[in-house]
Amino acid sequence: MEFLYRPIGFVRSPFTEAKGSPIQPSGARGAEGRIDLLPGYAAGLADLAGFSHLFALYHFHRSSGFDLSVTPFLEGREGQGAPRGLFATRAPRRPNPVGLSLLRIGRVDVAAGVVHVVDIDLLDGTPVIDLKPYVPVFDAPTGEVRSGWIGESGRDAATVRADGRFVAPGQGTDGE
Amino acid sequence: MEFLYRPIGFVRSPFTEAKGSPIQPSGARGAEGRIDLLPGYAAGLADLAGFSHLFALYHFHRSSGFDLSVTPFLEGREGQGAPRGLFATRAPRRPNPVGLSLLRIGRVDVAAGVVHVVDIDLLDGTPVIDLKPYVPVFDAPTGEVRSGWIGESGRDAATVRADGRFVAPGQGTDGE
Repeated sequence: MEFLYRPIGFVRSPFTEAKGSPIQPSGARGAEGRIDLLPGYAAGLADLAGFSHLFALYHFHRSSGFDLSVTPFLEGREGQGAPRGLFATRAPRRPNPVGLSLLRIGRVDVAAGVVHVVDIDLLDGTPVIDLKPYVPVFDAPTGEVRSGWIGESGRDAATVRADGRFVAPGQGTDGE
Repeated sequence: MEFLYRPIGFVRSPFTEAKGSPIQPSGARGAEGRIDLLPGYAAGLADLAGFSHLFALYHFHRSSGFDLSVTPFLEGREGQGAPRGLFATRAPRRPNPVGLSLLRIGRVDVAAGVVHVVDIDLLDGTPVIDLKPYVPVFDAPTGEVRSGWIGESGRDAATVRADGRFVAPGQGTDGE
C-alpha cells in the first residue's frame, strides 16, 4: 500500500539554511513568509481569511532516512541528550517525512493563490502538501495536558536553533 | 515532484461505516480505539506515554478526487449550506487526502507497537502515516483565535454525523 502525494504549493520564508533556523514557530515570532499555491489550487483559499491560524502539512524535503530512537534538538544542549522514541518527537527524519506547523495567518490573496503567514519556522522552498484551518473545538485538547520528556523544556524551542544533526549527506536539515 | 508514503500502521476503531460516524473527535467522546503499528516501528513509541495527546496523520483511504469548493458537514443541515473554499475546511476529499486528528492517549504498549487512544473519530482500517506528540508550545495558538465560517458552529461537530456527501462511487466516506 502506497500513497502518492504532490505539492500543492511551496513555502517562501527568510530561512534558506537549516542550520541556525528556528526549530518551531515559537522560535520564529514575527518572521513573515508566504505559501504560494500552484496554479489551479487558488480557489481553495476562499473563506480561509476568516481564520486566525492554519496547520501547514509539508514534506521535509531535506530529510532522508530515519531512526526509531533520536536525540531531539531540545535535549542534548550540553552533551546530556537522552535518546527518545521517534514518535514522541517532532524530528524531521521520519518513515513518512511529513511536517506539521501551526502558523498565524496574515493576509490571504485568493486570486493570486497566496497565504501570507507570520511566525513561520519553515525553510524556503519547502513543498506544502495540505493546508487546514485551525479550529479550537477540533484541535485544542480537553482535560489535562502532559508534555512528557519535553515538559517545560518546550519553552526552549523559542531560543534553541537547529544544528547539523539531522543533515543528510550534502544537504541541510529541516527546522522542526 | 512526487512523494511516496507508506502506512506505518492502521487504526482500529468502533466505526466501520462512514455514514453516521463522528465528523471530529469532539463527536466521539469516550470512543476507544487503537493504533496498531506495523512490525518494525514499535520502538518509535518509546517515551510517548508521557504525553496526554497526539496528532495522528492518516490517509483518507475512502476518499477520491476533490473539489476546490465544498459544502462541509457543519453547513447545510437544513439545505442552507454555503460552499466554502476547500482549504478552509477539513473535508476528506483533498488534492493530497491527508487527515489530521488530535487524539487522547490511553495506554501505550511499546513492545506490542500499540497506542490505545480515546475519543477517536477515525474509521476502522484507516492507514496511519505519522504520529506526533501534542506539545502546547508548538501546537496551541497564541493571541486571538478566529474560526471563520465555522465560528460557534464548530461545537456542533459533537453532534453532527457524516452523511454520504463525500462518498466515492461504491465506497464510504471518512469521518472528518
